[in-house]
Order: sequence, then structure tokens, then C-alpha cells
Amino acid sequence: MKDHPPMNGAESVVRSLHGAGVDICFANPGTSEMQFVDALDRTGCLRCVLGLFEGVVTGAADGYARITGKPSVTLLHLAPGLSNAAANMHNARKARTPMINLVGDHALRHRQYDAPLTADVEGAARPFSDWVRTAMTPGQFAADAMDAFAAATAKPGAIATLIAPADVGWDAGGVLAPPPPPSVSAAPDEVALRDAVRALKSDDPTVFIVGGSVLEDADALALLQGVAARTGADLLAPTSNRRIERGRSLPSIRRIPYAIDLALDQLKTYAKAILIETVPPVAFFAYPDRPSLLLPQPYEVLTLCGPDGDGAATIAALADRLGAQAVTPVDAPVAVPPASGAITPDSLAIAIAAALPDNAIVVDESITSGRAVYDATAGCRPHSWLSITGGAIGIGPPLAVGAAFAAPNRPVVTLQADGSAMYTIQALWTQARESLNVTTVIFANRTYQILKHELFNVGANPGRSALDMMDLDRPTLDFVSLAKGMGVPGVRVDDVHDLFKALGAATQEPGPFLIEAVM
Amino acid sequence: MKDHPPMNGAESVVRSLHGAGVDICFANPGTSEMQFVDALDRTGCLRCVLGLFEGVVTGAADGYARITGKPSVTLLHLAPGLSNAAANMHNARKARTPMINLVGDHALRHRQYDAPLTADVEGAARPFSDWVRTAMTPGQFAADAMDAFAAATAKPGAIATLIAPADVGWDAGGVLAPPPPPSVSAAPDEVALRDAVRALKSDDPTVFIVGGSVLEDADALALLQGVAARTGADLLAPTSNRRIERGRSLPSIRRIPYAIDLALDQLKTYAKAILIETVPPVAFFAYPDRPSLLLPQPYEVLTLCGPDGDGAATIAALADRLGAQAVTPVDAPVAVPPASGAITPDSLAIAIAAALPDNAIVVDESITSGRAVYDATAGCRPHSWLSITGGAIGIGPPLAVGAAFAAPNRPVVTLQADGSAMYTIQALWTQARESLNVTTVIFANRTYQILKHELFNVGANPGRSALDMMDLDRPTLDFVSLAKGMGVPGVRVDDVHDLFKALGAATQEPGPFLIEAVM
Repeated sequence: MKDHPPMNGAESVVRSLHGAGVDICFANPGTSEMQFVDALDRTGCLRCVLGLFEGVVTGAADGYARITGKPSVTLLHLAPGLSNAAANMHNARKARTPMINLVGDHALRHRQYDAPLTADVEGAARPFSDWVRTAMTPGQFAADAMDAFAAATAKPGAIATLIAPADVGWDAGGVLAPPPPPSVSAAPDEVALRDAVRALKSDDPTVFIVGGSVLEDADALALLQGVAARTGADLLAPTSNRRIERGRSLPSIRRIPYAIDLALDQLKTYAKAILIETVPPVAFFAYPDRPSLLLPQPYEVLTLCGPDGDGAATIAALADRLGAQAVTPVDAPVAVPPASGAITPDSLAIAIAAALPDNAIVVDESITSGRAVYDATAGCRPHSWLSITGGAIGIGPPLAVGAAFAAPNRPVVTLQADGSAMYTIQALWTQARESLNVTTVIFANRTYQILKHELFNVGANPGRSALDMMDLDRPTLDFVSLAKGMGVPGVRVDDVHDLFKALGAATQEPGPFLIEAVM
Repeated sequence: MKDHPPMNGAESVVRSLHGAGVDICFANPGTSEMQFVDALDRTGCLRCVLGLFEGVVTGAADGYARITGKPSVTLLHLAPGLSNAAANMHNARKARTPMINLVGDHALRHRQYDAPLTADVEGAARPFSDWVRTAMTPGQFAADAMDAFAAATAKPGAIATLIAPADVGWDAGGVLAPPPPPSVSAAPDEVALRDAVRALKSDDPTVFIVGGSVLEDADALALLQGVAARTGADLLAPTSNRRIERGRSLPSIRRIPYAIDLALDQLKTYAKAILIETVPPVAFFAYPDRPSLLLPQPYEVLTLCGPDGDGAATIAALADRLGAQAVTPVDAPVAVPPASGAITPDSLAIAIAAALPDNAIVVDESITSGRAVYDATAGCRPHSWLSITGGAIGIGPPLAVGAAFAAPNRPVVTLQADGSAMYTIQALWTQARESLNVTTVIFANRTYQILKHELFNVGANPGRSALDMMDLDRPTLDFVSLAKGMGVPGVRVDDVHDLFKALGAATQEPGPFLIEAVM
């Protein structure tokens, strides 16, 4: 391979992905991916970013795509490496984020022998992917990659996993493949539009539930708010979303609460729901004596446009029929810095709102402790809000890595529950290595607080053994030391004014920082 | 549930597992497992141990079973939690360790709605399990668990994954199920014995390759050494093994090297191989211009007994036919403490051998840096040796957790590569919480050294981008701080005599300790 004649399969894939617009590879490679490491190195086409654990890699790819709208490629090692990556593939899949995973496998001739690392890679990929294929020849490999690209970028975005046997990558005979044509959404559905107009003109209390790309498009959302204002309808977003553009001068939108009783209470005030780029909302979990559907019969549910539709065009068509105009957002009050005091869910929300810099990207994996931050930041300077979408905890620090690569000039603020932080804490190392401007705020309540709520929800009266499954205080996790161990400076605060000051300072400095906020 | 009439599905499972002899549960539960947390708490039947990441949980279950021979049960959360656990399920599967995984899923009635955490749990389990089932009714749930127990404990040991929809656990109607009859190995195969005797009496150079339970049974291994001595055969173990009992006064056995050229060189000196409780050895990875099978044609390979056989009985029958007696082990030289000097693969092996305490359990995930330790410790006081079996890195610290629970009075020493350590570093927290006597020695060469070898093996001439995928020195991982962050004290050493002293001291103290050995 020293003088690199003729192109091998791996190189044809790297060059073709680059030709389609992919410019970054998040990687945790092993032996069976060395031909890709070599091809990426020799061609210099893609920036390569190392994660020390595979969940970092896929979470970063998700974050990158959420900000840029473009897929990146991940490089993973066999079935165990894929499975380590799967939780954040799952989150990305539920976010409908485009992602292309290249997963190395044993050489085709080697797979029959049950070597130590042999396992069913396709089987491991399928539950977490929308599209799966195993490359079989060097000559077809780049075309396979372009099929993966097409699958990943089909509206609204999907997870494509291409399995790459080692010999298909290292053998000569690679052939470049052209990028696929861009994915186009269907035109607005005339029948659905007519039904929506009829519903909005009825006297029934009606709510729009709107997700997907509309939340990323302030103009479309403002126009939908105009429709709502004109027809007396309300507007809600799903509990978890890929990205919301929000803050001062932008439309603000409430979300359906996570807690099932709050969600049912909120939604029972309406009789009709009109869905745009989303599906009927479902309880996060089932509970004894609670419904699964949050819009139970006899709710009337009308899908104006599904997740693969063009929400903005649909809203424009609807506004046209109703003679509605975009509303000018009414700004929420600007946050005032907090006085000294204990760090509580309410006080930390004030501190974060007061310190949030302009043009920030907020990564929200704050679970219970951060519940007040979303509302508190409605009047902040404009920012992007990314949330955990599939309920697989361990997304925050990796998502921040990807977001920071996507927008190198924007400060990233990760609102991070302590229990969830421990699943992919390795992401801090990549933040340090790449000098990413990410400030991680750990909400150190030292418990899986949400599980305590859930345990009571199933009617239990927990004893020591049960509480031991939820308390994280024996020993106390020292996040400042953990961060130091990975090259990220940090500070511990237990006063909310100190939290405010530390967050303000950290976001102004380049490079990563961690604030452990003891609650 | 407050007054606990009548037994629900979860309680019937917990009580039945306890009845079958299961006494510990390694857990990382979520909402859909709260009825198990409640049942475990109320019954007090099983000790519950929390891991902060699922790979810790399954690695610990593996370590526990390797020492006790008994399965433990893990408690995992839906498909993403299962996938986080999968790499160490894979290692356990390749070790042929018994393990029962209980994986919560959404309530049966909730699965149709594609809630955020919905994914195909069975599909995610299958590539890493030998047996998979989804429980469907509370009344059958305990019987399902006993089928899982039977599958896990069938010789030689297997991974059984039982998926537990939430309502099947929380609904009343649980019925206790009796334990299955113990698994029995087949009697030695007379035809294979005759063939083996004929091979051993020929003039062809012959090697026994012996794995599985024989390596855990010093008497059987000594008797096999007697057979080898009488017939002029040699004896080798596979590269990676569940457990080897070894050290002074015990038989010693060499292993097939990991590096393919060394392995081929070693094995080409024989013409015939006789396999006991193992399968024909295969190259860990395929390489251009190298065979996959380490015993290529015209090698004559004779399986005297497969992994599910009774190696000890087979060896006894063979010795009987050949009139062979057990040999008395010839002790290797006792290690002498090292003088001061740099920490290198050779010098650290001397330090570890000199400091290794009596009756230690050695967990070996040392990859390249620890290559000399196995041979250096042959003359140490008796100890158990556990190795990474499936090539899925991130097994060391979790395996040590399980081993320490299995043998609370034995010191555990983890020989840990730095890159691999970062996959499941969260295990240190469980070591601290449970005050386990585990000493982790991090071999800080600050690189994925093995990948550098492998990159050269595919013929590459790496540039900066490729090296960035393998170097861990920017920033340097500070393992002492990482350990401190999880409540484990530690020290950094860069002199081999200090390594010797620190290891000796740490193993004599209760509780965990970490030594970062800078190379």
C-alpha cells in the first residue's frame, strides 16, 4: 500500500462521502478499521475526531447534524463497538438526525471461523438503524456508501449503518460513486389542509402540536403562531426535540411535560389536535392505571403533515387559506442575576438564564434538576436548544462535542444531570483535546432523582436496598476531579450566585470548563 | 402494592432465582425495572450492586461467575441499556460464562406506540446472547426465568437474556418455579479417545490445546501434563481464557500468542493437535496474506472433547489408557523485587510478579504493555488469572468488581491498559462504594499501542491524522484524578521499584486503590 496504486475500497468510500459533502468523521476505530484510518489520513478529505468511547462518537455525530443539518460519518469497531455506540444512535434516530455509521467487520473470509470478536454486526445494528447493509465488494463499496448517504438524508433524517468487512476496504478495485440527488419533501396535502381549516373554524378547543424542522425555523413558527392567534388555537411542541431556535425576538413555544399527569392535565383542555412534523404524543413510560396515548379517545387527531413533510410550506399554505400573518414575538422578561443562596431547581434556572451568552447552543440533559431552565430562558438572547430525544441517558457531553464542531464560534452550554453524565463522561477528553468552548454544568443532586419519582409511581415503599439503586452519594462523585483527569478545568459551587458568575466567565473563555453545581 | 398481596411477576422471578441458588444482582435499572427494584428490596433475597454504566454490570456478572462458577443476574433498562451492556456480554459469551440478564421493556400494551425509548430489545439481545425470550404473562414469568437459568448453566455456560415487559412484572399472578436439574456433560467419547491414543503413539509432533474448565482444575491439568510427558506431546492453552489456576505448586501452561506471526511460528512445529474443551484456534483478526486458521491444512486436528464436554473425565480416561500419572509441577523461579528504573513491559512484569500476594485474582486487560507478566508470574504464589476473552475492550475494572464479590477475602489485581480502561472506568465507583479490595494498575503508555502495530500490519505509513486516532497523550489522561473523582485513592509512579512497593502495599490494605504506572 506504500505507493498507493490503485484505489482500495476504503479510499473510494472516503472520497465519495467527501464528494457528497461529508466533512467530518467521529471515530473510535480498532484493528478492522485500520484501512479507513489509513485512507482518511492519506486523502485528508475529512476531519477526524477521536472519542475514547463509542457513545461519544455517535452522540457527537448527532450534535453535529442537529446544528448543521448535515450528516457526519462515524467509524466504529465490530459488533461490541457498535453496541457501545447504540444508545446515542437510538437518541439520534428518535431525533430524526441524519447519521452514517461505518462499522468495521472481520474480512469476509474470516467471518466463518468464530474468532473472538465475531458476532452478528447486522443484527446488532438493526434495532438502532433505519437502513443497514454489509458491503461485499470493493467496486460496489462507494456506491453502498452513497446509498447510505441517501438513506440518512432522506427527509426527515435517518440512521444509516454500513458494515465494512476489512477486506472489502483494503482490497484494490474501489470505484468512486456520485452523490445521490437531494431528498425533497412532498407538497402540502390539500385534503389535510381542508380538514385543518374546518377544525380550526369549529368551536372545539384545538391545539397544534408541532415538531421537527418547524422548531428550527423561526419564520415558520411565527407564522404558525399567527394562524393560532387568528383561530384561537394553542401551540405546543413535543417533550423532546432535535433543536429549537428560541430566545428574545424569536417565537417561544411551550412543550408537553414529561410527567404523565402534567401532560394529561395539559392536553385534556383540548378536544382536537393538529399535528405538524410530528406523531401523536405518547407517554414516555406506561404506568398502572394511566393511558399510553396522551390524546386518548375521543380526541380528534389530524395529521396536517408527518415527520417527513415540509412543515414550513404546509404552514404557509394554511396561513394563506386563513389569511393569517406571522406574529411578532412578545419577549419574555430578561433574566436578572440571582442573589446568593442555595442551588435549587428554581434558583439555578435563574442563574443560567442570567448568564446565558448570546448565540449559545444549550444541550439539555438535565432531567429533573433542570426542569425550570427552559421557561426561565425564554427571554434570553437567541440560542439553540437541543434535548435528549430517545430517553437513552448519556447524550449530553457527546452532543456538546458535535455541536461545538458544527459551530466553532458559538459557546456551548451543557445542562447535565449527574447520574446521566457518568454514561459518556469520556466526552470531556475530546472537549479538552479539541479545545472546544463547551461549559458543562453538572446538576449534582447525587441521586437518580427521576427513578425515585418512578418508584413511587409503581406504588413502592422503598427500603435501603432500593434506595441504594438510586443514590449516588456513597461515595460522592467528584466531577471536578473527573474533569481534571481528562484535561478539563473545573470548579465546584454550592451558591447560586457563584454558579451565575462561573457560567458567565467560562462561556467567555475558549476551551472547555466544568461547573459542578452542588444542590 | 403497599401491603403486598398477592405476589406479582417480578417477585416470583426474584424468589425463584434465589431458590435456584442465585444470590447477587448487578444492576443499572431505569423506570421500567422499578417493580424489580421493589421486589428485590422487599424480599431481601439477593444482594443488589449498582453500576453507574451497564458495561460495569455485565462485566461484574462475568467476573463473579468466573470465580464462583455460578451465574448472577443483571438488571438492565430497555434496548439502549442492553446495548451499553453488550460488549461485556460478548466477552462473557466467548468465555462461556453463565449469565442471566433481566432486561426491562415497556409494558406490553405500550410497545405499539413507539414511545421515545421503544426499540427492538430482542433484536438487540440476540447477537450477544445464546438464549433470548420475552416474558408474556406474570404466571409464566418465573418459569421463563428458570428456563433462562437452565440455558445459562448448561455446560459450558451461556448468556441467557430474559426480556421483562413492565406489566408482566408488576401485575399480580406470579407463580414460583422450581430450579431446573443440573446440567451434566456427556461421558468421554470412546472413538475420540481411541483416535487420540493412536495420534499420541505416532511419531508426528503433537500438541494438546486445552481450555475451559481444565484450566480451572489443577489436578486435571497435572494429569494431562503426565500424558504429555509420557507421549512426548506439548501442551498449550488458547490465547484468552475464562480462568487459569496457576502459580507455585500448580501446573503451568503456555498460551498461544495473540500476534499472528508468533502464533503461526509456534504452531507450525506440530503436525497434529488434540483439542480438549476448546475449538480450533483462529487468528484474532484477518490480515492480508495471512491464513485465518492457525492450524492450516494439512494439520490434523482431533477434538477429544468440545467446550461442552467433561475435560477432567476425558483426561482421566486418556491417562488410564496410556498408563500416565499426574506430574508434580516444577516451580518456576520465585520473582525478585526489581531495582529502580524505568517502567517497561519487561520491568513491570518483574515488579508485579514480586509483589503479587498469595491467593490473588489477577484480571488481565493489559493488552500490549502486560505481555511479559503472564510468564513472569508463573512462579508466584498460587493465583487465578482472568483474561479478556472476546476482544471487546473495557472488561478489566468491571470483571474485578465481580471477582471481588465472589471472593471477598482474596486480593484482586487488575492489570489494565490505559486506552481500554476508559470504556468502563465507571467501575471504580462501585469498587469504592462496596470497599472492594481491588488494586488497579494502569499501564499508562498513553497510546492505543496495539493499533499502531495493526496499522503497520495493513501496510500504512501513518501521518498526523492517523496517529491522532491512536495517541492518548493530548491531553494526558490523569488516572489518579479520575479515580479520586470516583472515591478511589491512587498514586502515580514512574519508577518500577515504586510500582512494586505501591502494589504490595495496596493489596494488603482493604478497599480499592489505583496505581498509574507511567511508561
